Amino acid sequence: MTEEIFSVVNGEVFGVWFLIGAALVFWMQAGFAMVETGFTRAKNAGNILMKNLMDFCIGTVVFILIGFGLLFGEDLVGLIGKPGFDIFTDYANFDWSNFVFNLVFCATTATIVSGAMAERTKFLSYCIYSAVISAFIYPVEAHWIWGGGWLSQIGFHDFAGSCAIHMVGGISALIGAWLLGPRIGKFVKDAKGRITKVNAFPGHNLPIGCLGVFILWLGWYGFNGAACTSVEQLGSVFVTTTVAPAIATVVCMIFTWIKYGKPDVSMCLNASLAGLVAITAPCDVTDVTGAIIIGAVAGLLVVFGVWFLDNKLRVDDPVGAVAVHCLNGIWGTIAVGLFATTSAPGNDSIVGLFYGGGFKQLGLQLAGFASVAAWTTVMITITFLVIKATVGLRVSEEEEIVGLDSCEHGLPSAYAGFSIMDISNTMTMDVNENTDLGVSDYDSASSFQKKAAVNVVKAPEMPATGIYKVVIIAKLSRYDHLKKAMNDLGVTGMTVTQVMGCGVQKGAGEMYRGVEVDATLLPKVKVEVVVSKIPVDSVIAAAKKALYTGHIGDGKIFVYNVDKVVKVRTGEEDFEALQDVE
Amino acid sequence: MTEEIFSVVNGEVFGVWFLIGAALVFWMQAGFAMVETGFTRAKNAGNILMKNLMDFCIGTVVFILIGFGLLFGEDLVGLIGKPGFDIFTDYANFDWSNFVFNLVFCATTATIVSGAMAERTKFLSYCIYSAVISAFIYPVEAHWIWGGGWLSQIGFHDFAGSCAIHMVGGISALIGAWLLGPRIGKFVKDAKGRITKVNAFPGHNLPIGCLGVFILWLGWYGFNGAACTSVEQLGSVFVTTTVAPAIATVVCMIFTWIKYGKPDVSMCLNASLAGLVAITAPCDVTDVTGAIIIGAVAGLLVVFGVWFLDNKLRVDDPVGAVAVHCLNGIWGTIAVGLFATTSAPGNDSIVGLFYGGGFKQLGLQLAGFASVAAWTTVMITITFLVIKATVGLRVSEEEEIVGLDSCEHGLPSAYAGFSIMDISNTMTMDVNENTDLGVSDYDSASSFQKKAAVNVVKAPEMPATGIYKVVIIAKLSRYDHLKKAMNDLGVTGMTVTQVMGCGVQKGAGEMYRGVEVDATLLPKVKVEVVVSKIPVDSVIAAAKKALYTGHIGDGKIFVYNVDKVVKVRTGEEDFEALQDVE
Amino acid sequence: MTEEIFSVVNGEVFGVWFLIGAALVFWMQAGFAMVETGFTRAKNAGNILMKNLMDFCIGTVVFILIGFGLLFGEDLVGLIGKPGFDIFTDYANFDWSNFVFNLVFCATTATIVSGAMAERTKFLSYCIYSAVISAFIYPVEAHWIWGGGWLSQIGFHDFAGSCAIHMVGGISALIGAWLLGPRIGKFVKDAKGRITKVNAFPGHNLPIGCLGVFILWLGWYGFNGAACTSVEQLGSVFVTTTVAPAIATVVCMIFTWIKYGKPDVSMCLNASLAGLVAITAPCDVTDVTGAIIIGAVAGLLVVFGVWFLDNKLRVDDPVGAVAVHCLNGIWGTIAVGLFATTSAPGNDSIVGLFYGGGFKQLGLQLAGFASVAAWTTVMITITFLVIKATVGLRVSEEEEIVGLDSCEHGLPSAYAGFSIMDISNTMTMDVNENTDLGVSDYDSASSFQKKAAVNVVKAPEMPATGIYKVVIIAKLSRYDHLKKAMNDLGVTGMTVTQVMGCGVQKGAGEMYRGVEVDATLLPKVKVEVVVSKIPVDSVIAAAKKALYTGHIGDGKIFVYNVDKVVKVRTGEEDFEALQDVE
Repeated sequence: MTEEIFSVVNGEVFGVWFLIGAALVFWMQAGFAMVETGFTRAKNAGNILMKNLMDFCIGTVVFILIGFGLLFGEDLVGLIGKPGFDIFTDYANFDWSNFVFNLVFCATTATIVSGAMAERTKFLSYCIYSAVISAFIYPVEAHWIWGGGWLSQIGFHDFAGSCAIHMVGGISALIGAWLLGPRIGKFVKDAKGRITKVNAFPGHNLPIGCLGVFILWLGWYGFNGAACTSVEQLGSVFVTTTVAPAIATVVCMIFTWIKYGKPDVSMCLNASLAGLVAITAPCDVTDVTGAIIIGAVAGLLVVFGVWFLDNKLRVDDPVGAVAVHCLNGIWGTIAVGLFATTSAPGNDSIVGLFYGGGFKQLGLQLAGFASVAAWTTVMITITFLVIKATVGLRVSEEEEIVGLDSCEHGLPSAYAGFSIMDISNTMTMDVNENTDLGVSDYDSASSFQKKAAVNVVKAPEMPATGIYKVVIIAKLSRYDHLKKAMNDLGVTGMTVTQVMGCGVQKGAGEMYRGVEVDATLLPKVKVEVVVSKIPVDSVIAAAKKALYTGHIGDGKIFVYNVDKVVKVRTGEEDFEALQDVE
Repeated sequence: MTEEIFSVVNGEVFGVWFLIGAALVFWMQAGFAMVETGFTRAKNAGNILMKNLMDFCIGTVVFILIGFGLLFGEDLVGLIGKPGFDIFTDYANFDWSNFVFNLVFCATTATIVSGAMAERTKFLSYCIYSAVISAFIYPVEAHWIWGGGWLSQIGFHDFAGSCAIHMVGGISALIGAWLLGPRIGKFVKDAKGRITKVNAFPGHNLPIGCLGVFILWLGWYGFNGAACTSVEQLGSVFVTTTVAPAIATVVCMIFTWIKYGKPDVSMCLNASLAGLVAITAPCDVTDVTGAIIIGAVAGLLVVFGVWFLDNKLRVDDPVGAVAVHCLNGIWGTIAVGLFATTSAPGNDSIVGLFYGGGFKQLGLQLAGFASVAAWTTVMITITFLVIKATVGLRVSEEEEIVGLDSCEHGLPSAYAGFSIMDISNTMTMDVNENTDLGVSDYDSASSFQKKAAVNVVKAPEMPATGIYKVVIIAKLSRYDHLKKAMNDLGVTGMTVTQVMGCGVQKGAGEMYRGVEVDATLLPKVKVEVVVSKIPVDSVIAAAKKALYTGHIGDGKIFVYNVDKVVKVRTGEEDFEALQDVE
Repeated sequence: MTEEIFSVVNGEVFGVWFLIGAALVFWMQAGFAMVETGFTRAKNAGNILMKNLMDFCIGTVVFILIGFGLLFGEDLVGLIGKPGFDIFTDYANFDWSNFVFNLVFCATTATIVSGAMAERTKFLSYCIYSAVISAFIYPVEAHWIWGGGWLSQIGFHDFAGSCAIHMVGGISALIGAWLLGPRIGKFVKDAKGRITKVNAFPGHNLPIGCLGVFILWLGWYGFNGAACTSVEQLGSVFVTTTVAPAIATVVCMIFTWIKYGKPDVSMCLNASLAGLVAITAPCDVTDVTGAIIIGAVAGLLVVFGVWFLDNKLRVDDPVGAVAVHCLNGIWGTIAVGLFATTSAPGNDSIVGLFYGGGFKQLGLQLAGFASVAAWTTVMITITFLVIKATVGLRVSEEEEIVGLDSCEHGLPSAYAGFSIMDISNTMTMDVNENTDLGVSDYDSASSFQKKAAVNVVKAPEMPATGIYKVVIIAKLSRYDHLKKAMNDLGVTGMTVTQVMGCGVQKGAGEMYRGVEVDATLLPKVKVEVVVSKIPVDSVIAAAKKALYTGHIGDGKIFVYNVDKVVKVRTGEEDFEALQDVE
């Protein structure tokens, strides 16, 4: 078989595979959408889905207009490609496959950011910075790395984008999350403003979050493999792309098991992604040993990253995007300089430090990391600051509490009909009717206590037990005020439910698919307290003060008589049963 | 390299790609299942999933027996293929790849219909008409277009099925939804029977609906690309298949943002599909400019279509299938005649009006559209009317209210354990305990009002406050009667919850996986009203009249005393606090 | 074109397809995760996802170290491959594609088991036996069949693993589920310990379960097709892989419709998988007729299997893994000996009994089935028994009731914010406030009854109606005790809600992503009973006895006065309205 024939065969086979790979990378958009949605709260699900859909669509628009030219146009002094409009003027000779492939890669960069900035970013701002990343920030540095720019000229190696995509997305995510500030309730401060506690906001739909991870992993075979040009190289890339995340996940499972007592599900899902990110740059130049070490480090790095952001940087990253993409993007970029080996098929020139290649490649990798990081940091900071100064980055406090679905998109709920209570709103609640968890932690009872507990008491006599249940229906956005008022009053127990109110509110109509959504459906919070020593009047007065705005929808308060209360463990009744602070 | 060798290479490469494409088209079944499920209500989720599963499986049976022969058998005077049983009698020489590919396309046609007719169609009727489409309606017109029939002979072009599949499915969907009538509660009529209001029934699971859109988009690379025969052509098809939906989505976002005040999530998801449908016929003959215009029009057309069905045709299409598939299928078919250009690789003959080709191709496209639309309209109307006259098209009112999962499949819930309240049942409710939205829309209060609102009142004295909470547990299917009775009585506030009742009902056992589901689990509705001026007796009497059927399960009514009611905004108490109509 | 050129072309084309196929098989992990999660209860969702993630990741580790060598190392007397470390020592010449392909197949075997053992297996035990299957049990028998071992030498045929993977996984699942014992509440026993009733535990998320089936079906095109080496063979495999599950599903739908009165959704989803499992071994050697019969039998076999396990073996298999994989794995293995035909492209030697091949191949298939089944049974039994004797197989009763997410992973809920009530806990409840289903089954009422039912009664007078609502907040794990106590007391109605309690419990902190989850959020059960004849004191005393443990969190009891009760059907009031047992 002649060279020429083989070259045509290879061109056909890998030409089709290149496009299949691009389709798999497109599919990663679904993965990001599911991971980010699943790991955040239900009230923002529609907004997150919309962001993930729109970053691809807006990205396509700007990539056609500017991005593709900057990336792949004729190289101008190693820095940018020359923008052009061949796609419009010379479609017959346009490089269609390359365009599609680079478009889906570009969109990946933009979508990483949305996770870290989820649940509090204005949708309009999101559209703007997402467009800037796809039109300008990504294409320029990708030109350096892949488009014939200066980094590719000096020998920097980033096969599928640990640096060009994940680190760039991750750095943007970090800066964005930091400029935005944390979600309300994430960090608890004391009177002097020092953070005393970090709250966990568990994701609202772990199954789709997990599905998202599987989608991403599948897509990654295209992400890492699409640019391969031989079956051997592709096979080896599949091996490294499989081994690194698997090892990362196992290491993370063992580490969280030891460190936190139990294997953490969502962290392990992050670890799979961390391993994939880390192997992305070196997937074609390392061997299985390299993949194992790269994966193992990634599995630890992601746990460290999440901890570091929560506890040191105090940056609130709802889905762990910074730990996954930024830290492991950097790690993968550097790993090329450590673990590259010519035993990887198709690699005959790049050798890392640990495989006897000395510091040369490592130096190149560090140079690439530093320059791309600097570019990204400067550009994205400018972008965010300009947005902040003009349209604003963050939604209002009320919008954040009520949820972005409702406020930004007029969507009453992404799960219409489901009863949803945002538990992040009840995080610092005290003892209440529904729990009776007690307050001290002893594990045994005296025989006297046991006897008392099963003692049969007299039937209650009506009326006037002096125990009341107060039911307060209020706006979600006033909940924090209400909680504080109740706590100040000494109320030790509350039950909080998020309800969909149904009532009339003329003229407030949101539109859903062009049809006015019945304004009778609005999210409200229902707070129930049972009191005896504390006068009902005080509760009512405090609630009124806390809730009053003078606008319609301030709420109502209902009082019911409670005939009897019994505390099971102690056998205490009525008044005593409610005194939980012993 | 010789022609012959290249031809073999190409045959191998695109032979495998053809089957990968078929697998991707199969995958679209999952996309349709998720979109249709996510965009409808939870109580019908199992039914919708079942329909999407069964249309493929039943379609396979009838396509083996009849459909494939009609489509690809020896052409009989341009109208149908000659049915045959080569698949059974000459398997060794059968065209396996072609069979699989056409089967998955055929199943797509049938599955489009289920979305528009969701939530009220009898499952048996669905199986029948789905079989008729796959066995007969689709194969005949597809023979015209792709099987060597008259449309292909005269030069009609529909590369991947804007006309053959989406328009046919969309027309069937429109006629089906029109013959079925709207879901209960979709259109509100006044006393004279005129529709005064269109209600939005938000989908119950937007994340899986969005996932479905991503699945469909991914599958579409196979749908549009599978029949390509060169890398260049495939690359170009990938470009147009990416650009059109992206543009459609951006245009739809901007349009809904301007028109309805906020960017509509579910409409944008529809717009992505609309763009994909529209580019399906011309994907191989147009360039990026054509794809942009085709997509932009699609993004507007889908919004118009949803509005037009709701407000002009008064046809209830829960998922927007008609707007997406019918309108954009027609648009895509016509667009070939407008935007075809020889600068698209592989196209050397078809030129549209806007690219200097004159009206010839446009005329052919209109002829194809008209003839296929006529065929489909006649055949599907006959099919539906025969079904309506025999087994019936629509489930009973009670089955529709209770849900098809329970009534058609004995499935208590597709989300066992989740607390679900079908909010579409509460749409026209008035002010109630849970909301206190007030009735007039003023935004400020006098200082007197504010003072009154925080005024501390006396403790309630027992007994006889004269305020009562009446809790009514009833059958779901009697809810509308109950609501009307309460409204007639002047009750202005209700809280409605859909509950799973647990009680004994001997001998009513549904089977789940061959095991009797405990009859103690039945969906019930819980209605709470708080009354003062209206006598409790009247409420009870009205409820009894509304609920009584004499069958077991008619329900119970409980009355509780309410000690106090306070309205926060006004500071009004008790009797006054309940008089919301000011 | 020369042989040599064609061979290179084919090598390139099917070399890439082989890896695409491997990626599709990897994708099946997502399918298993979704099916198993969707078909079980919400409280264990995170645990099931974690298991499906970890079996792949742990499997990768042990397959690198041991499994791949045992499978594909130099054959030792037909029994095992010689373990080796070529992957580490000779990476440049390693068979990367084969490694990846066999790894994803191996992981499939392990993941099948988790479904049957779901909702009660210790996570640690799962990790161990999953590793044993991937490291040892699967590689040895797969060596026999595919690695050059004795079964491949004598002519046993199992193209893609009906026997090697599905039957092995299915047998392990059966033995595991049997050794574990059923989930609490699955089988109801009478006083003599005889099982009198099988309870259905409906899955908590059918949409993702259905999505999982579609994912698996898509993946199966890779599973069955990856090893094909010609377009013709691949086309035929796609045909059989499509037809068998489609027929199985249709047959199952018809059968359950006739047998149980309604077409069963989840059983049909199982039937699709059953058809896929059954066609896996013979997919390349049978024709469409064979595929139809194999599918039809599979569709019945899965219904029989589920029934047989529930009603005869009394083995609790939550997702139907044994019926799907074990029974249909055996059926598929045998079917090769019945339906193999040389009219299938690429098969020129294997002919089954029904195609005139006599008993030879059938005998080989039975030999293969028997030997692999024996190997698996012995090995997995030893594995499980060793685990049982050391770390233990099953979680504690309390952990099982509370849920594995919370107990094994410190995850409060996989659906944070959703209100979830585990209905499997209410299965044997009697008549209650929420239902009033009545107790006898008559369908008509006399005019006297009707008159009485709508009779207006006098307003209730306060106080002392003698009807009380008792609300009991308790630990989930004490629910069964409480239910029994209430039943013994003659309470005929209860409403049970699973609530998230919010209260203070210092020092009990679980970790979620390294952050302490607020201990105020713990699952509790809320039981409401309305009593009149039965003294409130008795209810309180019984509840206290049932709930008392002396630990904090034993719960509280609240009593409310009910002013009035009306039973709609009979018009009975108060005391009489509560006497449901007539």
